[in-house]
Amino acid sequence: MSNKVKVGIAGASGYGGGELIHLLLNHPKVEIERLSAESNAGERLSSLFPNLPDIGILEKTSSVSLWNDLDILFTALPAGMSSRIVATLPKPHPVVIDLGPDYRFAKADDFSNVYHMEHGAPETLPSSTYGLVEWNRETISKARYIGSPGCFPTGALLGFLPFLHAGFLDKGPVIVDGKSGVSGAGRALTQDTHYPEIAEGMKAYKPMVHRHVPEMENAMNLFSGETGEVIFVPHLIPINRGLISTIYLPVSDDVTPGMIESLLLKYQEDNPFVRIVNSPPSSAHVRGTNRIDIHAVRSKKAVVVMTAIDNLIKGAAGQAIQSMNLVLGEDEMTGLPLWGAFP
Amino acid sequence: MSNKVKVGIAGASGYGGGELIHLLLNHPKVEIERLSAESNAGERLSSLFPNLPDIGILEKTSSVSLWNDLDILFTALPAGMSSRIVATLPKPHPVVIDLGPDYRFAKADDFSNVYHMEHGAPETLPSSTYGLVEWNRETISKARYIGSPGCFPTGALLGFLPFLHAGFLDKGPVIVDGKSGVSGAGRALTQDTHYPEIAEGMKAYKPMVHRHVPEMENAMNLFSGETGEVIFVPHLIPINRGLISTIYLPVSDDVTPGMIESLLLKYQEDNPFVRIVNSPPSSAHVRGTNRIDIHAVRSKKAVVVMTAIDNLIKGAAGQAIQSMNLVLGEDEMTGLPLWGAFP
Amino acid sequence: MSNKVKVGIAGASGYGGGELIHLLLNHPKVEIERLSAESNAGERLSSLFPNLPDIGILEKTSSVSLWNDLDILFTALPAGMSSRIVATLPKPHPVVIDLGPDYRFAKADDFSNVYHMEHGAPETLPSSTYGLVEWNRETISKARYIGSPGCFPTGALLGFLPFLHAGFLDKGPVIVDGKSGVSGAGRALTQDTHYPEIAEGMKAYKPMVHRHVPEMENAMNLFSGETGEVIFVPHLIPINRGLISTIYLPVSDDVTPGMIESLLLKYQEDNPFVRIVNSPPSSAHVRGTNRIDIHAVRSKKAVVVMTAIDNLIKGAAGQAIQSMNLVLGEDEMTGLPLWGAFP
Amino acid sequence: MSNKVKVGIAGASGYGGGELIHLLLNHPKVEIERLSAESNAGERLSSLFPNLPDIGILEKTSSVSLWNDLDILFTALPAGMSSRIVATLPKPHPVVIDLGPDYRFAKADDFSNVYHMEHGAPETLPSSTYGLVEWNRETISKARYIGSPGCFPTGALLGFLPFLHAGFLDKGPVIVDGKSGVSGAGRALTQDTHYPEIAEGMKAYKPMVHRHVPEMENAMNLFSGETGEVIFVPHLIPINRGLISTIYLPVSDDVTPGMIESLLLKYQEDNPFVRIVNSPPSSAHVRGTNRIDIHAVRSKKAVVVMTAIDNLIKGAAGQAIQSMNLVLGEDEMTGLPLWGAFP
Repeated sequence: MSNKVKVGIAGASGYGGGELIHLLLNHPKVEIERLSAESNAGERLSSLFPNLPDIGILEKTSSVSLWNDLDILFTALPAGMSSRIVATLPKPHPVVIDLGPDYRFAKADDFSNVYHMEHGAPETLPSSTYGLVEWNRETISKARYIGSPGCFPTGALLGFLPFLHAGFLDKGPVIVDGKSGVSGAGRALTQDTHYPEIAEGMKAYKPMVHRHVPEMENAMNLFSGETGEVIFVPHLIPINRGLISTIYLPVSDDVTPGMIESLLLKYQEDNPFVRIVNSPPSSAHVRGTNRIDIHAVRSKKAVVVMTAIDNLIKGAAGQAIQSMNLVLGEDEMTGLPLWGAFP
Repeated sequence: MSNKVKVGIAGASGYGGGELIHLLLNHPKVEIERLSAESNAGERLSSLFPNLPDIGILEKTSSVSLWNDLDILFTALPAGMSSRIVATLPKPHPVVIDLGPDYRFAKADDFSNVYHMEHGAPETLPSSTYGLVEWNRETISKARYIGSPGCFPTGALLGFLPFLHAGFLDKGPVIVDGKSGVSGAGRALTQDTHYPEIAEGMKAYKPMVHRHVPEMENAMNLFSGETGEVIFVPHLIPINRGLISTIYLPVSDDVTPGMIESLLLKYQEDNPFVRIVNSPPSSAHVRGTNRIDIHAVRSKKAVVVMTAIDNLIKGAAGQAIQSMNLVLGEDEMTGLPLWGAFP
Repeated sequence: MSNKVKVGIAGASGYGGGELIHLLLNHPKVEIERLSAESNAGERLSSLFPNLPDIGILEKTSSVSLWNDLDILFTALPAGMSSRIVATLPKPHPVVIDLGPDYRFAKADDFSNVYHMEHGAPETLPSSTYGLVEWNRETISKARYIGSPGCFPTGALLGFLPFLHAGFLDKGPVIVDGKSGVSGAGRALTQDTHYPEIAEGMKAYKPMVHRHVPEMENAMNLFSGETGEVIFVPHLIPINRGLISTIYLPVSDDVTPGMIESLLLKYQEDNPFVRIVNSPPSSAHVRGTNRIDIHAVRSKKAVVVMTAIDNLIKGAAGQAIQSMNLVLGEDEMTGLPLWGAFP
Repeated sequence: MSNKVKVGIAGASGYGGGELIHLLLNHPKVEIERLSAESNAGERLSSLFPNLPDIGILEKTSSVSLWNDLDILFTALPAGMSSRIVATLPKPHPVVIDLGPDYRFAKADDFSNVYHMEHGAPETLPSSTYGLVEWNRETISKARYIGSPGCFPTGALLGFLPFLHAGFLDKGPVIVDGKSGVSGAGRALTQDTHYPEIAEGMKAYKPMVHRHVPEMENAMNLFSGETGEVIFVPHLIPINRGLISTIYLPVSDDVTPGMIESLLLKYQEDNPFVRIVNSPPSSAHVRGTNRIDIHAVRSKKAVVVMTAIDNLIKGAAGQAIQSMNLVLGEDEMTGLPLWGAFP
């Protein structure tokens, strides 16, 4: 009889779900017990993901009884769905780690304002927290519901929070120019992600109105006390994986390069998945890892911070497992790749 | 006997030179008389460019006598070389349209400060001008030496100048986040542009110290009277052609969306290669054309302007031909593609 | 009043239709009079194709009256649809050039066997022919219905027919290994053409059972008299445009390299869009053109022929216009690009 | 004191060397003791490979004394170099596993004929063997020098050997159409692998004269007893990793689909890294793994076998480690990824 931790994944047919399975198969402390999907329920995993072993058939997400005997339930579902499933689970139930947005806001109203729908289980929000591990370890380790951050907020917040937390921000907005590979747009077919429409091209989308803006502003306030505006323009780039955030921060004149260097080296020391690099990071060098590479330069009036992550790992599945490790009392690095293949 | 305008291209073996030839072959008023290269001198054009017809053998750029009987001389050469060639040409000589940086600054010192070398023909600078057609038609039409803008400055300046010229800029830097396809880095082999190093990856390079910063600040002052700082971070994106500029402009509160719309529609009306679009432009939709597609959105504290160009056409060869058309007294659109193929 | 030839395009919202429009806009003898689509009817062209000018709104393909006053009707529609439209047109009606399969077989039964549906207008087949211009000029110039070849058959037939026609084929099958860019799979959304599914990957599909096999075998017989088997395996490659055919031909021992060279040079001489090159052709060098680049090498037991085309031009829209030029009595090169941009 | 096996890598700065390091870092039984390079000697590993940890400085390959106290020496060097190093090593020395070609032929003359140079240590050839694990386990486990197969031969041989070994081959050549990602061409800068030259294009190279032909013919004879001709045309495809081999085999009429199925299922059963799939395999689904996915279809006159591998793993570093595992008496799967990430 295995004494491994039992995990389930609701929403295993998308890219986030697939990466979760891929990573968890290499995790020494857990066993994948159950997988589900909606429209793909009934299919074999290896038919949906020929890169993965044939570990079974996906069940129907909405079959409630599925989830109750597990230790950890990962949900990788569209907005509103994971909280609706949670509402149907008898208690006690597994700790829920949501890769969707349902647990990214502490208040149901904030969620509703952004996603234009009711939260499915507002009574669970007091036991929830935001799964930005590097800034929230203690609360995560005790939470029952963890809202794993979106990929863009992850790359941006991990880049600018140290500066804000240190009080380096001058007045003015924080500008985040994000560039994401196409896997970040998900597995559902859309015209924008049809190969010939995006290959050999690139473009911004939803400039300044993206749902990740309130998530960033909320987390900015939570972890640094600042209440500034975030101007955010995401771009779709024709690569599969990778997310670069170029962050323009107004800083006061008395912030010296030395202060920045000390700040970042301390940040690296405290966080095993943070690496400070001495030139602009390439997304190709963090691909396949849970690392974030960070580089910062100072101009007269601003600091520019550049971060690189793998959007499906540090920006989704890997970060969620990092939270799980804290919940389980394990080293946060357990089972997570720090180094990747190149090219 | 042909009464076509005779043109030559010094530096025909690079991507800018190749695109010049491709475009000029379709230009009804000119005839390509002479092509040159340095290390590739002696090779047939069709061996260097299998996409082009076999119109002859490249001569040696530095053979001075080559150039004097032409009407127009395009130079697509490394910094400093075109002015050194100009210095050796007996007068009168052809109008020189330089795709390199030698004629992008009115003062030899400015050139020297940026490129760390002497200008080869400082005495010619008073007869030169900056080839940003949309903002400088009259001077270009009479100039003897035209410094065609760099690809990044083209995408940025054409995006932000209308706002600065209209007095919309509030205090604070102009931030330009540029994303360029790899052809913008040229045909010379480098590790950064070796296929496996850049494919499936992306990164910033030379943040804030790129040579295009002084070029932009200089042109900003020339055409709008503003003397602000430009913060510029270019990124290398794994596509062949295409350049997106995402420009963050601080604007005063009294600039209304209606004012922006009027400004841009007038801009489009006055400039045949400017098209105002109602969503963020894709570089794939301007590929193969001399067009710039522009979209702007207003947030509380800023306007974000997004522009898309083909870096080898509007950002290099096409823009240079647009200048040539003015010099020749032709319609500026002659021989230049307004629409392209997709995908 | 314009005396240009009036053309219409039924099925203007796909990639073949879009490329037809792009090319016809540069054709000096024609005017695009009418465009149609099915699900996209009612939309503006520039909204479906932001790379193209805003020349109007797409009408509903099935509105019969649309087509009758034109000179040429291009149809770029799914199997069976163009013949059904033809059946409803009062006579005389425009010459129909079909980019779909309805007129690729002389017999209705052959069409039905391959496409598993009835032909919509079998009575028109006697006035139809196969639009492989290089091998069928005279018949095309008099035909009322032209079945423009599929992209794979174009690249394969133009590569192997000279050898078969010259009697060089020894017994054994003709093997065609085809590699196509993703635009060849069309604009309709499918999982296989969702960006992350195909980028950074490649695979064969429908090995040996592809519908293009009977088309190739049929044309092989028609133009060379041979009745051999074609073994064909197409592959999907993550580029937008381009089609490489690698053809393995068993040839008899007495075929010398000199005989092959003579054959190919004569072939080039007779056909303005055929270029014989002295190393394996790259699809990047024919992109944007109606050219086919061909290279052949001899081993002990076989000749390997490699051809490169732009699947949307020589493999679709360009070849159809080449047929139109013959119908109109024009030079077959009119309005068609022989040289393209690179990179 | 660690009782791990000590390994060194001569030639650690190329892509094969980098992947070796990446895989060995995850191997439970070995420790990387020493790395070397030629032109990059003196650099830190993390500067050459920002995807890898900073485990030290690369020494100079030719410093002989480096290698003698190791258990296993991997060499990933240009032709002729590993045997020249071997010749200088005092005996006993580590088992040498060469990713280059020096130990791919049993006879020094065969090596010389293909690579046009002398073999550096012909006296070691009797103790060497060809590292195609699936067909040569026993000999590999006892060899002192292992010539790990080239990437193309790996994909082809593992695909066609079962059929030849079973006596299914009819007379006629074996035709192999290979498609490789660009990492297969190595890390050295060349015009063909400069990003803009190959992106959005594809082409054959060295048709039928590639050095891998004699390697394949030699191994064909060694493992199946057949002495047939291999016709091989490799193609360069604009992806980073992945190699598809499409193999056209003439088979006799009495080979039934059932016989093929049985053959392949037995092959899968005997070989843990072989997976028989029921549709053409995608290179994207084996990326990051040591697996080979195989699919075969029968036509009237031929069997087409399609195989997919990761050229840097199963085609290079992974296969070499698989050999090492045999030498060490470990399970051949130890430390090697069977499943990968997608997309």
